[in-house]
Amino acid sequence: MTARTTGPVLVVGVGLLGGSVALALRTRGVEVLLEDLSPSSLQLAIDYGAGRSSADHDAPTLVVVAVPPDRVAAVVAAQLARHPDALVTDVASVKVGPLEELRAAGVDVAHYLGSHPLAGRERGGVISARADLFYGRPWVITPHATVNTRRTEQLERLVLDVGATPVVLSPEEHDQSVALISHVPQLIASLMAARLVDAPAPAVSIAGQGLRDVTRVASSDPELWVQIVSANAAAIAPVLEAFRADLDRLMGSLGAAAAPGARRVLAEALAAGNAGVARLPGKHGEDARFSSLIVLVDDTPGQIARLLTDVGELGVNLEDLRLEHSPGARIGIVELSVLPQKRPELEAELRKRNWRIAG
Amino acid sequence: MTARTTGPVLVVGVGLLGGSVALALRTRGVEVLLEDLSPSSLQLAIDYGAGRSSADHDAPTLVVVAVPPDRVAAVVAAQLARHPDALVTDVASVKVGPLEELRAAGVDVAHYLGSHPLAGRERGGVISARADLFYGRPWVITPHATVNTRRTEQLERLVLDVGATPVVLSPEEHDQSVALISHVPQLIASLMAARLVDAPAPAVSIAGQGLRDVTRVASSDPELWVQIVSANAAAIAPVLEAFRADLDRLMGSLGAAAAPGARRVLAEALAAGNAGVARLPGKHGEDARFSSLIVLVDDTPGQIARLLTDVGELGVNLEDLRLEHSPGARIGIVELSVLPQKRPELEAELRKRNWRIAG
Repeated sequence: MTARTTGPVLVVGVGLLGGSVALALRTRGVEVLLEDLSPSSLQLAIDYGAGRSSADHDAPTLVVVAVPPDRVAAVVAAQLARHPDALVTDVASVKVGPLEELRAAGVDVAHYLGSHPLAGRERGGVISARADLFYGRPWVITPHATVNTRRTEQLERLVLDVGATPVVLSPEEHDQSVALISHVPQLIASLMAARLVDAPAPAVSIAGQGLRDVTRVASSDPELWVQIVSANAAAIAPVLEAFRADLDRLMGSLGAAAAPGARRVLAEALAAGNAGVARLPGKHGEDARFSSLIVLVDDTPGQIARLLTDVGELGVNLEDLRLEHSPGARIGIVELSVLPQKRPELEAELRKRNWRIAG
Repeated sequence: MTARTTGPVLVVGVGLLGGSVALALRTRGVEVLLEDLSPSSLQLAIDYGAGRSSADHDAPTLVVVAVPPDRVAAVVAAQLARHPDALVTDVASVKVGPLEELRAAGVDVAHYLGSHPLAGRERGGVISARADLFYGRPWVITPHATVNTRRTEQLERLVLDVGATPVVLSPEEHDQSVALISHVPQLIASLMAARLVDAPAPAVSIAGQGLRDVTRVASSDPELWVQIVSANAAAIAPVLEAFRADLDRLMGSLGAAAAPGARRVLAEALAAGNAGVARLPGKHGEDARFSSLIVLVDDTPGQIARLLTDVGELGVNLEDLRLEHSPGARIGIVELSVLPQKRPELEAELRKRNWRIAG
């Protein structure tokens, strides 16, 4: 596929995000220039096929600054001065702070446009970089008053080239959003995981997937997260306060667990949790945008393909599919997710073709 | 494999846990009798191959009570009276309460031995039951003063037969352990997810895997969890109090985010989270029994069917399949799980057929 982006693109900082941007652009044939404070990281990125080392005479059209949050503003300012015609973006998780820092330093930000790809892995470094890291992930672009619309379009082309979905938010909307969906969950996971430090061994030994999931992100790098949380403290605090108010109410109900009113408080907290999860996009629990249909199939080869061929013939687009394979049961379960308006027709047609539908 | 358990085993309540115990025992050839208040659940379990309906003249050697926590004590008492020679166990998540209830009612508990398999899924019902639900999972057995050691051994044989690992704890140790590793994480996940109920749509739309993991268990059944939390409130309260004390300290540090001391508090909280996660056994998110292969497919109708037809033609049995559909993305991601020895062949053959494999 040809690229929408006209290179060369300069990537400053070849960690997980910078390295992944570079790899993704290279697969599209875009010329990529690389810089990193660490010569060995730079060499590794070059060996990886992420691009070539940048030289003084290079004139990038776009600069992607992928350095730790604390250094973003300084590096962006330096790149704006060095490449006055290029668009300079950064990929840090906080957007208001760096912009304010640049303005406070008197930097002309007409060619600066902050952004933030919502993608990552627990492990950092170019060694963990992947060309497909951004596939299907949102990449937030945060225009400010003095940046040109043409620059937003230029950045959107890069975002599309790496397979991500551009989402335009103001810097303030962005910071409030990530406080809620990323920074507070990170802190809550860390506080939950911290309870395990002094836990008796038998308790830890019986822990399961639920606890692993709740605490997974707590294995993230503390140094990076101190920077992120400090930079976004103003947006994080009110979310934690609301969380704490709910926690207090719930703890109050535990003390009086026998009372019927207490059970109601508890039930409401758990039901609110259900409702919150239901709002998440993607495939967890149930996606409110789609209806699911559960088909029972014989546990023999070719059944699923036959089912999906039937679904395809009916012209219904599958939004999601889960296959449950239980070695003990004589039947398997296929959960098909489709647009709600398609569900009744699909169910009727599949029943006509003798598929067993559950429920 | 032959079973260690001498049947018949009566399973009372064919939901997720009861159904899975029944399926697992059936794969070992153990005779399984089934009972359920709901005739349609019972029939579905029988269709599923979980066993046969129990009859008056049946004499089970072991009764597994798998009913909601609120009903455990009453059903255990009834089964002890009906089958005086059988060992009666239950699989509820709280162990002190039911035992106290039985004793308070003057029931002779010499043949009752509580237990708790640490296995589950968000969705209940026999439709979600799997013979391998307990594979490699701990199954806690909680002996009390008046139960015979021989009975513990009998229950251990059943636990081994379903593929689980017996762990012996006192009822009190059990309840404190699950408060920490299951009940508090459930409540924290629910409180976190509840913050999403009134979240602006853009925030929710950019949520990613981190938030999904932290909140996954919040999609659990509130009715069941009200019972569990109420029954174990005494053990849950001190864990929540310690969590809240840490939360307060962290919130205090946010207010003074600029101060160096505040950053230390934050760094310590995040580092404690690292240390807590490191104590958890096992690996996250990956099923060690299977290898996965990620295939990138165009988001057009019929692609998945075509892929699965190819997989079927290669004679490779799929152990699991996950489809990731990201709105906006031009490609979907299909994760195929297969036996490790089948993976290289599958990858080579799919590449030959022009499927795009990630990684």
